[in-house]
Amino acid sequence: MFPHALKTLRSVQWTRNMATDAFSKKCVLVVGAGDSTGAEIARVFARDGYTACCVRRDDEKAKDLAAKIRDEGFAAEGFGVDCRIEENVQKLVEDIENRMGPIEVAVFNVGANVRFPITETTSRVYRKVWEMACFSGFLLGREAAARMLPRGRGTILFTGATASVRGGAQFAAFSGAKFALRALSQSMARELSPKGIHVAHVVIDGPIDTPWIHENFPQAQELKKVDGLLSPEEIAKMYLQIHKQHRSVWTHEVDVRPWNEKW
Amino acid sequence: MFPHALKTLRSVQWTRNMATDAFSKKCVLVVGAGDSTGAEIARVFARDGYTACCVRRDDEKAKDLAAKIRDEGFAAEGFGVDCRIEENVQKLVEDIENRMGPIEVAVFNVGANVRFPITETTSRVYRKVWEMACFSGFLLGREAAARMLPRGRGTILFTGATASVRGGAQFAAFSGAKFALRALSQSMARELSPKGIHVAHVVIDGPIDTPWIHENFPQAQELKKVDGLLSPEEIAKMYLQIHKQHRSVWTHEVDVRPWNEKW
Amino acid sequence: MFPHALKTLRSVQWTRNMATDAFSKKCVLVVGAGDSTGAEIARVFARDGYTACCVRRDDEKAKDLAAKIRDEGFAAEGFGVDCRIEENVQKLVEDIENRMGPIEVAVFNVGANVRFPITETTSRVYRKVWEMACFSGFLLGREAAARMLPRGRGTILFTGATASVRGGAQFAAFSGAKFALRALSQSMARELSPKGIHVAHVVIDGPIDTPWIHENFPQAQELKKVDGLLSPEEIAKMYLQIHKQHRSVWTHEVDVRPWNEKW
Amino acid sequence: MFPHALKTLRSVQWTRNMATDAFSKKCVLVVGAGDSTGAEIARVFARDGYTACCVRRDDEKAKDLAAKIRDEGFAAEGFGVDCRIEENVQKLVEDIENRMGPIEVAVFNVGANVRFPITETTSRVYRKVWEMACFSGFLLGREAAARMLPRGRGTILFTGATASVRGGAQFAAFSGAKFALRALSQSMARELSPKGIHVAHVVIDGPIDTPWIHENFPQAQELKKVDGLLSPEEIAKMYLQIHKQHRSVWTHEVDVRPWNEKW
Repeated sequence: MFPHALKTLRSVQWTRNMATDAFSKKCVLVVGAGDSTGAEIARVFARDGYTACCVRRDDEKAKDLAAKIRDEGFAAEGFGVDCRIEENVQKLVEDIENRMGPIEVAVFNVGANVRFPITETTSRVYRKVWEMACFSGFLLGREAAARMLPRGRGTILFTGATASVRGGAQFAAFSGAKFALRALSQSMARELSPKGIHVAHVVIDGPIDTPWIHENFPQAQELKKVDGLLSPEEIAKMYLQIHKQHRSVWTHEVDVRPWNEKW
Repeated sequence: MFPHALKTLRSVQWTRNMATDAFSKKCVLVVGAGDSTGAEIARVFARDGYTACCVRRDDEKAKDLAAKIRDEGFAAEGFGVDCRIEENVQKLVEDIENRMGPIEVAVFNVGANVRFPITETTSRVYRKVWEMACFSGFLLGREAAARMLPRGRGTILFTGATASVRGGAQFAAFSGAKFALRALSQSMARELSPKGIHVAHVVIDGPIDTPWIHENFPQAQELKKVDGLLSPEEIAKMYLQIHKQHRSVWTHEVDVRPWNEKW
Repeated sequence: MFPHALKTLRSVQWTRNMATDAFSKKCVLVVGAGDSTGAEIARVFARDGYTACCVRRDDEKAKDLAAKIRDEGFAAEGFGVDCRIEENVQKLVEDIENRMGPIEVAVFNVGANVRFPITETTSRVYRKVWEMACFSGFLLGREAAARMLPRGRGTILFTGATASVRGGAQFAAFSGAKFALRALSQSMARELSPKGIHVAHVVIDGPIDTPWIHENFPQAQELKKVDGLLSPEEIAKMYLQIHKQHRSVWTHEVDVRPWNEKW
Repeated sequence: MFPHALKTLRSVQWTRNMATDAFSKKCVLVVGAGDSTGAEIARVFARDGYTACCVRRDDEKAKDLAAKIRDEGFAAEGFGVDCRIEENVQKLVEDIENRMGPIEVAVFNVGANVRFPITETTSRVYRKVWEMACFSGFLLGREAAARMLPRGRGTILFTGATASVRGGAQFAAFSGAKFALRALSQSMARELSPKGIHVAHVVIDGPIDTPWIHENFPQAQELKKVDGLLSPEEIAKMYLQIHKQHRSVWTHEVDVRPWNEKW
């Protein structure tokens, strides 16, 4: 095919909501690519043809995850980045866009679940939880949107929690950050959806099958046996489904919990 | 495989949340299998291996839809039933369970969108809208639940609307019915989820690509060109996705609207 | 003062949101004027200068309540009316407007709290609860609105419950009716507020200090001692406060619960 | 009365939810005592017998407001404090408690309404809005709670906005802060209500009658004539009403808007 035909074709495809194309591999950027949900999101998108850009603060662990995904035969790269720092996020996004391909999907999956009585909630904790679970999400969302807007396409997904919709006792810091993240998701969705960018918020309600759960809850193993722990892989598949939604049927918020969870 | 092994296998499979099995074809019961969304739900589940039981008041149209699905090579049957009548729903469910197979999925997809100033809302309209859009949903949900409970499995899906979460001016009748249907879905989900039955509510917000829309809104064709009308087939696929969710990640409510819809 | 001046003055006052005037005693119509909250609402408005029209199905009890209010020196009349019947509500409103004065405030305070597993919820119960707790509210709201609209003033208050905003397990019937009533309140508020009629919904969450509570909950007396039962008189005062709000600061929904209630 | 009787009486009264007592004048602490709502809240509580502690960043304006309240014959003092700084809030509360009396009511009434497209929302703006409209609310709430908890009484009121419950397009920063403040209010209410402290959130929806509105909206004067601007004094009265609620009927959230406001 001649170069100019290629260019025309690419531009046509570029304006449609495709998951992959043959010309440049697209990237999924996962901030909070930790040991369970975030890692599975990276993996599931990688298996679907995306270059998984795995971001967490621990550089070694980020690179380990990427290596494992590459061992499966898929494209991935790890980045040890503290996304609470504006320039870090800007450099990260620039680096990915320059070296690896356009960010088609950005996922913000950072948790910071802490619980303190209000009078024992230090200002340091309150601020830090907000910086981790909300402010860095704002930075990621904004930088991703800035890249996606000229292309008129892309998906931005935020991980929520029960604390996103209910301010429980002793959860002032965590629910403050999660409520604010939900506001960000709603606000960005209302602004960006008409410009072709799909923004959605997933309210995860219940214990996820993570190493942490197994270390801290004796009943975790029993719960897992009966599918009472949210499966990270199944959560990840749901993120992929949301991303792949036809733009006539976009979801902006969905809840998800185990069958036996009270709510 | 030996018969007793078969039997063991069947029982194992029976207790897992499978979409299909080789031993008995399962049914999806769609009440409100009209010209667009309901028809597509029936079709999409039929293509996935379910016997589509298509229910609407007009017997001929119900049977037409079933015939079309069978023409595609899938299993379907049409039923002209007014589901506001308790015995009708009971007989319908009994008939399907006796003749066709277990109801694995029940979908209530009846709309009744009317708009009147409050003082022009007759008691007849107010009651009728409730009977169509809520009471018949209660009857279907209850009868389906009664069959599913002994089996410890099944999915019940309710179609919601913007009016399910917002009581707009002049929508007292419609939003009354839709709010009540949402209450039904929440209540049944909280009671039945721990018993293995997945109950979910889909809030459809925006114009669906139906014959009615095209007849009544001159701009419908333009909207459709840019994916501004909800695609019934895509909605149907979402219902199937929700049904197929692993029980560790059940959704109980999700919204869906076109990318360019204001909300 | 000369008659024409009087007339001018009355008309001026008529267009302002006054609680009382000297020319004609205004009425509060309380449907569900039972033994506690409803009775207190009638009493509190009567003490504030309204003619309390106390409505419940039991004619004798309705008249007893009115007599007690008159014994205090205030205006009241009792009506034994089943407000699920359209003509009953129409006649009631007509009778009050003709004989007693304009209905300035209409309060719908009918409860119908029942709890059944979904498969044990008969269609008769489901329908009856809706008729009592929602349909009769629609009839009252509509008839009151029809009288208030030409005057461009009035207040319509609906009593909600926890079940108005949460569909709990086994509460399909009750929460269905209460969700629908909330939809009615929202819809009427959005339509009628710009026409000068204040419509509001009060979500009462927790046990009210009623004879029924004391008969059915052994711990009621202990709770009452520490103000753990909602005081009907205090609820009634809140209704009066909402009615008296300046129209630049109208409330459309408020929650209320005892200090020690979990939510 | 003998001193020991006095002491007993005081202690009895201390444990009840009284608005005033004869023994020591109680304080209302208003953070965000600006030119309209905050000032009126201070004034209305002062008229009710509280010492109004008026706090805003501009020391001169804070002291001016206090002087005006004193000119009316009531108790007030002005404090120019930046409440985004933890030590400032701690010193402020300590100073008031030591010199002026127990803080019976704390009101957080700081707004920070800004609107920017997401890609034009600088990290500085995003953080600053959060610090002003949420973090300082956390500091005030926590310090007030620490004083109120040993006394088992007190009221903490947060001013919300439409942006507290809806993340509108281009309102990522403002709605982020307001959602988070609502989470704080909910969380503190759930933790502190059972300990005798009333925490509530007022969702103010619509234009308030402020100098700013009149400068920026040409139609403000017309709106005001028909009560289409929220009256600061009426809002303030509502805060006082909430504070005075009997503890068996505590409100935790209420909305308020002009009669002609769309919502």
